[in-house]
Amino acid sequence: MASEYRGPPLLDLTIDNITPNTNLINGQCSDPRLKYLMSRLVTHLHDFARETRLSTDEWMAALNFLVGCGQISSDVRHEFILLSDVLGLSLLVDSINHPKPPASTEGSVLGPFHTHDAPVMPNGGSMSEDPEGEPLLCICTVKDTEGRPIQGVKIDIWETDSSGHYDVQHEGRDEKGPSERCVMESDENGQFWFQAIKPVSYPIPHDGPVGKLLDKLGRHCWRPAHLHFMFGKEGLDRLITALYLRGDPYETSDAVFGVKQSLIVDLDKVDKATATEYGVKEGDWLLKHDFVLVTEKATEELRDKNAVEALEKLGLRMKLLDHLPVPELD
Amino acid sequence: MASEYRGPPLLDLTIDNITPNTNLINGQCSDPRLKYLMSRLVTHLHDFARETRLSTDEWMAALNFLVGCGQISSDVRHEFILLSDVLGLSLLVDSINHPKPPASTEGSVLGPFHTHDAPVMPNGGSMSEDPEGEPLLCICTVKDTEGRPIQGVKIDIWETDSSGHYDVQHEGRDEKGPSERCVMESDENGQFWFQAIKPVSYPIPHDGPVGKLLDKLGRHCWRPAHLHFMFGKEGLDRLITALYLRGDPYETSDAVFGVKQSLIVDLDKVDKATATEYGVKEGDWLLKHDFVLVTEKATEELRDKNAVEALEKLGLRMKLLDHLPVPELD
Repeated sequence: MASEYRGPPLLDLTIDNITPNTNLINGQCSDPRLKYLMSRLVTHLHDFARETRLSTDEWMAALNFLVGCGQISSDVRHEFILLSDVLGLSLLVDSINHPKPPASTEGSVLGPFHTHDAPVMPNGGSMSEDPEGEPLLCICTVKDTEGRPIQGVKIDIWETDSSGHYDVQHEGRDEKGPSERCVMESDENGQFWFQAIKPVSYPIPHDGPVGKLLDKLGRHCWRPAHLHFMFGKEGLDRLITALYLRGDPYETSDAVFGVKQSLIVDLDKVDKATATEYGVKEGDWLLKHDFVLVTEKATEELRDKNAVEALEKLGLRMKLLDHLPVPELD
Repeated sequence: MASEYRGPPLLDLTIDNITPNTNLINGQCSDPRLKYLMSRLVTHLHDFARETRLSTDEWMAALNFLVGCGQISSDVRHEFILLSDVLGLSLLVDSINHPKPPASTEGSVLGPFHTHDAPVMPNGGSMSEDPEGEPLLCICTVKDTEGRPIQGVKIDIWETDSSGHYDVQHEGRDEKGPSERCVMESDENGQFWFQAIKPVSYPIPHDGPVGKLLDKLGRHCWRPAHLHFMFGKEGLDRLITALYLRGDPYETSDAVFGVKQSLIVDLDKVDKATATEYGVKEGDWLLKHDFVLVTEKATEELRDKNAVEALEKLGLRMKLLDHLPVPELD
């Protein structure tokens, strides 16, 4: 092993030479994308320590914070997604990867509560059995940017119960199975409709390291009331988004930066005709919304174009390899 | 809570405005140091994502990597220290915090294997019972920068067994208790001497996420043979260092960047007189070394001076608060 070593001689490393040497030894990597990611990561990490003169105690506290995030994570809790959310990274990564042409529905953060075991539900089904929830009828369509309905789109929908908790945050979820979540499919008119409950604002999980961090930063941990949606169909760019209720006290201070004005909706009340047509009670809450999806190809082209422009603006000489930047010369 | 919110309105966040807005909301933090650390962290994290056009899959892989690091960590294993070590961050943080004047012993990385339960050992004791190890007599002194011996310095010493494993890497360590580690104290002549075994090169733990990362980077996971030392006494700057055996195949490619030329030592053989004096066998390995410690005050002054110079060079207008930089104007 040692005889194969072709990196630089690593001796007498200091504040000033550790970064190029770490990048040189990582430069042995045969994957150009990973090599680029690592070189930027190491450079930023080291610059951060140099600019802040990071103390040994702070370094240790940070490493222990990271251990804590890993240890509180489980199959149904991902503290690092939550950390990424509150640091604005999730919003940023989503914006980079899923740029939206003007006519399409904007994205929002996925959050840590999507699961893969939600039951498939036909049109008109009810995704919540919470008796405390205020009934909400949702009538939605999925269209393309030309206004044509799209059939056969798989739609994941999830929300909290009336207490502001997702099912996975309750004990005994393994036995009870999923609730307040479902998977639907748009019909030949691009429509899907379902019964849910009126979303409520809720605090993100704040009993772990991320909650403690928000507390230290003087930030609240609340999200405004919303309903999550994820749309997927072959050939279409996966859309992860949410609809937010207008007038929520946390409308302009979402702890995870997810709110967009185009995603804020007004609820209506179900009138008599609608009640009869959809088999719900007159006076229930009503949400009507049209989602506009973009093709994978259009998204890819826009993403590539944005990437090239942004990198040029940053003065970086890069090329795209499988649509991801790597240095032009290496 | 919502009514107390004094941050910016967080709406329609994009690739271009997420960073200043995240910093504005974190700017509610009342601790100026934490506020500065967070603003630099968020800026670097976001710049990293923007420069690399980080993909959703890469983002998710990174978050899952971090969960993995947290979950493999335990009371006796700290995967994030290991990660910091292989990324050169540990060496950097140590260099920033423990600058060494020319006449003093240089530092090296702590590594993840120091424990707090090592037995106190008198001069002449043996820190290893490994029958496979080659006996090594160590005769050392601790002096100040004027060459005066320092009495009463507490010295933690730890090394692997002859198989290249620290005690905590073996099953049943709870029952057996510590081995290949001890705590000594320098005597009135600043001396301490003890029996150990000749250190061997060994791979850092590579069965976890960090090992997999090194593998992907085409890096080996070996450290050259060394003996760890940590020196502490009130009024003296804590010295964490190690002595490396000259000629080790990994001498210039240490996986954690710890080797400094001044810390590479030659072993000798115990002669007849020394064997008699120290009660060991003639022909055993012999290591003689003089460690030079610096006062806490001198280190603090040097650290402050280096910080001010470095920040000026970076063009940052900072002041030191409790010896740590914060922005001059906030």
